[in-house]
Amino acid sequence: MTKSLIGFLGPSGTFTEEALRKIVGKDQKTTPLPSISEVINAVQNGDVDKGFVAIENSIEGSVNTTLDVLTFETDVLIEQEFVDSISHNLISRFDLTIDKLEAVISHPQATAQCRGYLLKNFPGVQIEAANSTAEAAKIVSEERGSAAAISTKLAAEIYGLKVLDEDVQDFKDNQTRFVMLGDKISKKTGRDKTSIVCFIKTDRPGSLLEILQAFAENDVNLTKIQSRPTRKALGEYYFFIDLEGHIEDEKITNIIALLRSKLREVKLLGSYPKVKIND
Amino acid sequence: MTKSLIGFLGPSGTFTEEALRKIVGKDQKTTPLPSISEVINAVQNGDVDKGFVAIENSIEGSVNTTLDVLTFETDVLIEQEFVDSISHNLISRFDLTIDKLEAVISHPQATAQCRGYLLKNFPGVQIEAANSTAEAAKIVSEERGSAAAISTKLAAEIYGLKVLDEDVQDFKDNQTRFVMLGDKISKKTGRDKTSIVCFIKTDRPGSLLEILQAFAENDVNLTKIQSRPTRKALGEYYFFIDLEGHIEDEKITNIIALLRSKLREVKLLGSYPKVKIND
Repeated sequence: MTKSLIGFLGPSGTFTEEALRKIVGKDQKTTPLPSISEVINAVQNGDVDKGFVAIENSIEGSVNTTLDVLTFETDVLIEQEFVDSISHNLISRFDLTIDKLEAVISHPQATAQCRGYLLKNFPGVQIEAANSTAEAAKIVSEERGSAAAISTKLAAEIYGLKVLDEDVQDFKDNQTRFVMLGDKISKKTGRDKTSIVCFIKTDRPGSLLEILQAFAENDVNLTKIQSRPTRKALGEYYFFIDLEGHIEDEKITNIIALLRSKLREVKLLGSYPKVKIND
Repeated sequence: MTKSLIGFLGPSGTFTEEALRKIVGKDQKTTPLPSISEVINAVQNGDVDKGFVAIENSIEGSVNTTLDVLTFETDVLIEQEFVDSISHNLISRFDLTIDKLEAVISHPQATAQCRGYLLKNFPGVQIEAANSTAEAAKIVSEERGSAAAISTKLAAEIYGLKVLDEDVQDFKDNQTRFVMLGDKISKKTGRDKTSIVCFIKTDRPGSLLEILQAFAENDVNLTKIQSRPTRKALGEYYFFIDLEGHIEDEKITNIIALLRSKLREVKLLGSYPKVKIND
């Protein structure tokens, strides 16, 4: 896909671009877009060929947005899934000791994830907010030489900053699932997942049970189930389900047909391979 | 509880304090704490009598933290639940017209939720980040007279700012569930909910099914189910379940005893009444 254009959640230098570069390399044409919603809608409108966003456990903002926009706003499909480890780094222009460090700048969620580290190593340091981890690096590079950013190594590279300390997040095993979005159901590979959204007719006990029974009776393993509020009222939910297998597998085709006859709606978000990222 | 001390997710002036004030009034002694984890741990350690945090759909940061800390780090219990509507406001020192507005400052999640409004009414305006909606109001009040903040009406009051525009979020029906935390299982009122966490022994199909069957067979309505990754590996989940009824209801006591015999662990997070907030 070297001639195609991939939109990703920007700005340049965030975890999303860092993961994307590991997958498609440096020569792929990509374009940063200002929100998850705009990435997904750009795929829908054909402004980009593919979109790349986080779908679970990201640092860069609420990934529920990804689920909601895929569910309610577009017919965009998940074509591939990637899992990458997230590592926060303390980066700055100079080797700053604690008495010289004026402030630590990052997205509030990133500084929250490094709270223990900062309390221990830089007690009392001022924490300032940026709109993204990459913006934090830009601010340190262009305006605030006595401050450090919590950011990616890619941002350190882009903005000519030093990595003072690696892996500074409090929970070391911080993984994020990213998805490549497009308009196709990917070919069956034998190591596939399928994502669906089930809309429940009423709030009665047992509606989710019916869904799960259909899968369990056919030995289909669910890897994720999440209820998300519909945007109408608190307490009204839709279910986002990931299952092992491809929509072309006969038993999965049959289960989904059965669910469609019983539920208000079953929306397919894609059948796609799990792809390994090479670090 | 007028003599007791309630800890809440600070700083002062955020949505959390705005909701808390509606419930306990102005005379209640409260103290802002710097993170959800610190609020819950302060209850655990007895540093405060109660804690007040968001548990679903908040603006101030990831509420998954609330679920995770209650599940893994403490024995703190949910004693009451409140639902409040979240409304963003554009506030500033002066009546700023678009040509005079230098920047809009807020928590990145808040500006993201008002993105459509800002694009339409203030195209091209610079968006700057703050660590909270309240910090944004403070910055406008003390340093940046030509900027506006997206923040609460409470913050406008605290920092002597004007409300230029109300309800500026793109999705109008933005509700948040807050919980009062303590060390007690609340008395049965007849309009109660019970929250539990189920840990699944293995990833086999049907383990969640067994849980749901137990509730459905006894006509117990589930109002929420959410899988959350355990902190060990992506793909390993625990289930956070809200159900209608009180732990002292015989059928619920029996179901939980049954689940405890089948699952690795069932942790009770509380039985508590749903309390209405008076605006």
